[in-house]
Amino acid sequence: MRRLSLTLLAAGLLAGGIASAATTIPAAAVTTAEQLRDRAMHDDTAYRIVSSLTTEVGPRLAGSEADLRARQWALAKFKALGFDKVYTEPVTFPLWQRRSESGAIVAPFPQPLVLTALGYSPGTPAGGLTAQVVKFAGLDALKAAAPASVKGKIVYVDYQMHRQKDGHDYGMGSAVRTAGAVIAAAKGAAGYLLRSAGTDVHQRIAHTGVTGFRDPRARAIPAAALSNPDADQLDRVLAYGKPVTVRMNLDCGIVGEYTGANVIGEITGRKHPDQVVAIGGHLDSWDPGTGAIDDGAGIAITMAAAKLIRDLPQRPDRTIRVIAFANEEMGLWGSRAYAEKHAGEVGKFVLGTDSDFGAGRIWRMSASVQPSARAAIGQIAKVLAPLGVAYDATRPGGGGSDLSRMHAKGMAALTLTQDGTHYFDWHHTANDTLDKIDPQDLAQNVAVYAAWVYMAAQADGDFGSAPGAFAGDGAGE
Amino acid sequence: MRRLSLTLLAAGLLAGGIASAATTIPAAAVTTAEQLRDRAMHDDTAYRIVSSLTTEVGPRLAGSEADLRARQWALAKFKALGFDKVYTEPVTFPLWQRRSESGAIVAPFPQPLVLTALGYSPGTPAGGLTAQVVKFAGLDALKAAAPASVKGKIVYVDYQMHRQKDGHDYGMGSAVRTAGAVIAAAKGAAGYLLRSAGTDVHQRIAHTGVTGFRDPRARAIPAAALSNPDADQLDRVLAYGKPVTVRMNLDCGIVGEYTGANVIGEITGRKHPDQVVAIGGHLDSWDPGTGAIDDGAGIAITMAAAKLIRDLPQRPDRTIRVIAFANEEMGLWGSRAYAEKHAGEVGKFVLGTDSDFGAGRIWRMSASVQPSARAAIGQIAKVLAPLGVAYDATRPGGGGSDLSRMHAKGMAALTLTQDGTHYFDWHHTANDTLDKIDPQDLAQNVAVYAAWVYMAAQADGDFGSAPGAFAGDGAGE
Repeated sequence: MRRLSLTLLAAGLLAGGIASAATTIPAAAVTTAEQLRDRAMHDDTAYRIVSSLTTEVGPRLAGSEADLRARQWALAKFKALGFDKVYTEPVTFPLWQRRSESGAIVAPFPQPLVLTALGYSPGTPAGGLTAQVVKFAGLDALKAAAPASVKGKIVYVDYQMHRQKDGHDYGMGSAVRTAGAVIAAAKGAAGYLLRSAGTDVHQRIAHTGVTGFRDPRARAIPAAALSNPDADQLDRVLAYGKPVTVRMNLDCGIVGEYTGANVIGEITGRKHPDQVVAIGGHLDSWDPGTGAIDDGAGIAITMAAAKLIRDLPQRPDRTIRVIAFANEEMGLWGSRAYAEKHAGEVGKFVLGTDSDFGAGRIWRMSASVQPSARAAIGQIAKVLAPLGVAYDATRPGGGGSDLSRMHAKGMAALTLTQDGTHYFDWHHTANDTLDKIDPQDLAQNVAVYAAWVYMAAQADGDFGSAPGAFAGDGAGE
Repeated sequence: MRRLSLTLLAAGLLAGGIASAATTIPAAAVTTAEQLRDRAMHDDTAYRIVSSLTTEVGPRLAGSEADLRARQWALAKFKALGFDKVYTEPVTFPLWQRRSESGAIVAPFPQPLVLTALGYSPGTPAGGLTAQVVKFAGLDALKAAAPASVKGKIVYVDYQMHRQKDGHDYGMGSAVRTAGAVIAAAKGAAGYLLRSAGTDVHQRIAHTGVTGFRDPRARAIPAAALSNPDADQLDRVLAYGKPVTVRMNLDCGIVGEYTGANVIGEITGRKHPDQVVAIGGHLDSWDPGTGAIDDGAGIAITMAAAKLIRDLPQRPDRTIRVIAFANEEMGLWGSRAYAEKHAGEVGKFVLGTDSDFGAGRIWRMSASVQPSARAAIGQIAKVLAPLGVAYDATRPGGGGSDLSRMHAKGMAALTLTQDGTHYFDWHHTANDTLDKIDPQDLAQNVAVYAAWVYMAAQADGDFGSAPGAFAGDGAGE
């Protein structure tokens, strides 16, 4: 993937040398972007937005009553911030509900376990599912297991994530949750448990998240995550060498279909209203927390950045579109619906990325653009450098999580990597609350977005968006 | 209190100068104590004991089925460790049960709240108690409130504890919980909420603990603690200035009486079997955690210290008694029963203290002894000094939590102050689990106990225990 990117980069530099139509950011726009950047560092709009969302709406699981309230909140907030155009686009998805959940070691040492049901998990029978536990150290061990060894049992996968600035352990952590449950079910397991995909090793708080059971071909079984200390306890109990029986009691499941919506606010472009710089986050959250870092922060950062640009003496040349996506958590439903609907206009999406990795400072930028736009990306990088953002020209830009779907259709995209050292301490838990957000770190994110979004909106020339333009760039893989 | 102690000390030094019958620790005993101390630092017996208790029994709320299993565990563990005499003494107390608990903000911004019922709280009516919240910054504000201002409402006291090495904020934190609930009820409140008496300001985990409703004269109302982030959220919602309605749904209450037991193990003294050095901890725990720091650690530290002495070539001169107290958490029931039963023999309790402040290192020692024993306490202090224990001769020694009742009857007592900086992060919560214990810190505690217990057992002379000997020394106040 890295080698491929270097090849692309080399090709880009070469093409840039030959072609004369290089995209550039006018000097006046660079100056304004620098002012926006500096203004954002002293602006608390984003913090007020995320405080409002997490306090007034709180948890907003996709399809819940609070999901509707969150959409009403977003519509009202876009309008209050002075966006020129505010509208919704419907998104339909399976409606999964969590009603109650508990767990316990039944034998040999009876005691409760802190666990949480995973997205799309079916419920257990009334009275719970009680079965022997069979433990695997990781996904490979589970894949290699003979079906007879897991049939009728509760499979438990004990993979421990560690803190990383770029959060890369979540690749395996989320695979254990999504694919692990599906593999265990396919082998005939009665239930599935994992050590939470989280780095808060001393907190008795379980991390929820989606399974792969969305796939209608998958056999679905009750699936839940144990908190890290509960996984430690289960490990200790298993180490006594006696058969260990666990009861999972999950009242949850898919109860039908729901139609929510992506909520969209725009600052209309003065010269090219049909050309769009696309940013955003997702409006839904998991239900145990209040969705502050995931993804109230992303909503707030992008709304606040657009608002700063809106407050300039005149509108930017291109339209700035902030998309509050529906139901990211249970499978990018809003994002996929958006990309399907707007694939035909992908050439009009000049540049985009969304914010969905918490509220830590942005420390790295990369881009997937056509070679003729590399110099303009370099101009953006120069404006962002004083914020501590390093430009890595060897990596592709994937467009974030939700806008990755538009990038896959051909939208030129950035990746703005946030410091995720503590993100997985709180991700998908009750602990995803406002106190985890540092207002200054949040403001740095706004500064980054305000600057690059404005420069992209004012650029002379484009960044290469076109149907299928970035197929195989390695981003989003 | 400090001035009183200094006066006592001065009197002690004076009396010591006059009296010739000063208690001393023989040189051979000092040498053995130093060996015990150094051996303990490389001994993992205590860690294995607390691991065994928290893994095999786990949570053990007084009067629960697990309380019985804990007693069986303690009897078996004393025997396995080679104690000479193992027995129980019955303790009867009100049986309080927690069945389920939940809470929510109903208006203006509906969302769940993380809370936990407090000890002796009655349950709410089916469907919950829904009422307007009235907030007080602290206990004094509540005391000053006109009954009309709280009548029929849910009183919420918002006192925030901060981390302290000696944990002194718990004085107010626990008063808000115990007295606050009683005061609110007396003024006619319908329910009581407090910000958890805990220092884990970013953890969505509530701290339980007892109320003052044990007193039969008290009017009891449903009472619960909010996690710190939930208290922050309630504060934010209240700050909008609209009436705030909360629902508490507690299924809990006193269901009768229960007879448990103090479980006692002894290393029988070779020369003076009827003279006792008394140590211990409490066997019960709150139910959300597994009772590792509160008070598996105290049980383990004192069992392991006695075991090290037991393994010497010959038994100590005096008896070493390790008491695993029943139901400390809901009002020192085991401790009070013990003191009532043994008050007449208090003169035979040569010196004592229990361990009930977690597993942090001991950093300070103080003592309540007769003046003629100050020099012997100085000898103990000298052996403990290399472990980082400072002797504060200006403070009284209160005997810990459970043995404070025997001290009140006249037992000479030490106070061994542990580092409690993080104790109230986990105290009375689901997070009171084995991973919070550092094995080396635990071993330091064992080293302190093994050394002083042995020296007290071998002392030539006593420490002044006699009926009423230490009345008014300020300890335990």
